[in-house]
Amino acid sequence: MSAEIVTTIAHLRELVAAARRQGRSVACVPTMGALHAGHGALIDGARAAADVVVVTIFVNPIQFDRPDDYRLYARQLDADREFCARRGVDLIFAPSAAEMYPQPTVTFVEALELERHLCGAGRPGHFRGVATVVAKLFHIVQPDTAWFGEKDAQQLAIVRQMVRDLNFPVEIVSVATVREPDGLALSSRNQRLAPAERRAAPILFRALTEGQRLIAGGERQAPAVKAAMLRILEREPAARVEYLEVVDARMQPVDRIPADVRLAAAVWFGSTRLIDNLLCRIDAE
Amino acid sequence: MSAEIVTTIAHLRELVAAARRQGRSVACVPTMGALHAGHGALIDGARAAADVVVVTIFVNPIQFDRPDDYRLYARQLDADREFCARRGVDLIFAPSAAEMYPQPTVTFVEALELERHLCGAGRPGHFRGVATVVAKLFHIVQPDTAWFGEKDAQQLAIVRQMVRDLNFPVEIVSVATVREPDGLALSSRNQRLAPAERRAAPILFRALTEGQRLIAGGERQAPAVKAAMLRILEREPAARVEYLEVVDARMQPVDRIPADVRLAAAVWFGSTRLIDNLLCRIDAE
Repeated sequence: MSAEIVTTIAHLRELVAAARRQGRSVACVPTMGALHAGHGALIDGARAAADVVVVTIFVNPIQFDRPDDYRLYARQLDADREFCARRGVDLIFAPSAAEMYPQPTVTFVEALELERHLCGAGRPGHFRGVATVVAKLFHIVQPDTAWFGEKDAQQLAIVRQMVRDLNFPVEIVSVATVREPDGLALSSRNQRLAPAERRAAPILFRALTEGQRLIAGGERQAPAVKAAMLRILEREPAARVEYLEVVDARMQPVDRIPADVRLAAAVWFGSTRLIDNLLCRIDAE
Repeated sequence: MSAEIVTTIAHLRELVAAARRQGRSVACVPTMGALHAGHGALIDGARAAADVVVVTIFVNPIQFDRPDDYRLYARQLDADREFCARRGVDLIFAPSAAEMYPQPTVTFVEALELERHLCGAGRPGHFRGVATVVAKLFHIVQPDTAWFGEKDAQQLAIVRQMVRDLNFPVEIVSVATVREPDGLALSSRNQRLAPAERRAAPILFRALTEGQRLIAGGERQAPAVKAAMLRILEREPAARVEYLEVVDARMQPVDRIPADVRLAAAVWFGSTRLIDNLLCRIDAE
């Protein structure tokens, strides 16, 4: 089997159970499709770690706060299948919304504290939708490991917290953000940038890099770091900042920087919202 | 192995995994201990259905809304172990609160709509605590089937909804309420009733039975059914009604009775709160 597309939960379970009976290990890479080299890094990691690699492709309606974002989200299953086949993926689980939500779900998984800030503040219900669909996918695929990108740092923190708090029998593995040569983090949403917006977008990474440089140089006041990053972003008229924060491992904004922090930002370029983040290690000074 | 007590998640997982490798099926009976014949019926069902029966005994702090109820909840592990051994239980999972919640959980499972009424209205956070601990136990034990009593009808409805919505790979099996000869539903909380309260308590079942009789006789107006049940309960000065409802399968109160409904009540006797319910089938007329 090579990048076989499976659309029903029952069929996917059957194939995974058969692999399990042969003693094969299973890795899951949950995605919303429109696969790029960032997903490729997740798949490569999963491929090296497990006997069976399952990529899930599902644009999850309940995590979108804006209908147009859901509607416009890139869908390209044929290209995604080729992408997966080249990388040795065994199974692509690509269910319909009706297969995943035959009735509107009334059960939700929430990591309350971690949802409060950053993307959670601007996208109400987003992380509840993410945690809920990840729980569903874990129950459907029942993988040994699941692979997530560090670009979505808050999502990663919430999934880790959910697995720990609810004792999911799955190990979460994270993979470093993959970037364009100019620093722009790979994202399916980059496709939507107009040429001028695409040229402007690397300013986000440059601002984060400047914040990281200041902290590495000894700056310990978050407001000073944020102000410096903001000055860089304000130089770019195409960029509109949604948030810019210095947060701890639990995604809570900090004022002083006593230990490792993450610089996290969401910036709009036209009608496209991009996020990015950088970890700043204090013990690495 | 016979009614072996296991206190850590890691050890329980090891034992279940070993059974799985031998191709043995696993049934889980989640309880808070203080086992009685109601639990016995769950265990007997599980014993007949599966190769390995795991009874979990955990007085779950996050589902108690009143500290004294948590403190006073009967704990009797030695007696429970004997009870389980006599019924052929293989494993008793009896973790400490620290083993289950090494950190306060920030992740919760909620079946929002189903929590709104009945016990959910009077016990804020109760069903969120139940759904969350059941999710944890399912992830720890990973059973094929899990057994719940119909006495806790709202809990059962929420667990079923959670399993359906989140695609848990487990089958929920429910077992009819076991009653004393005078109709009182078995409950660990019955132990707390003073003798006079114990004599008064069967009034709850008598009121439900009267409601069931009226519906079987053609009454289709919920307010009339509730008024008749209330008249019976008001005859007993020791009984204080918390709620008395006619609900549909989703635990939503109804006014008209067009199809199967459940009569559900919570009644206090002194400082002890008892619940009970009866299903009324309309198609059985």
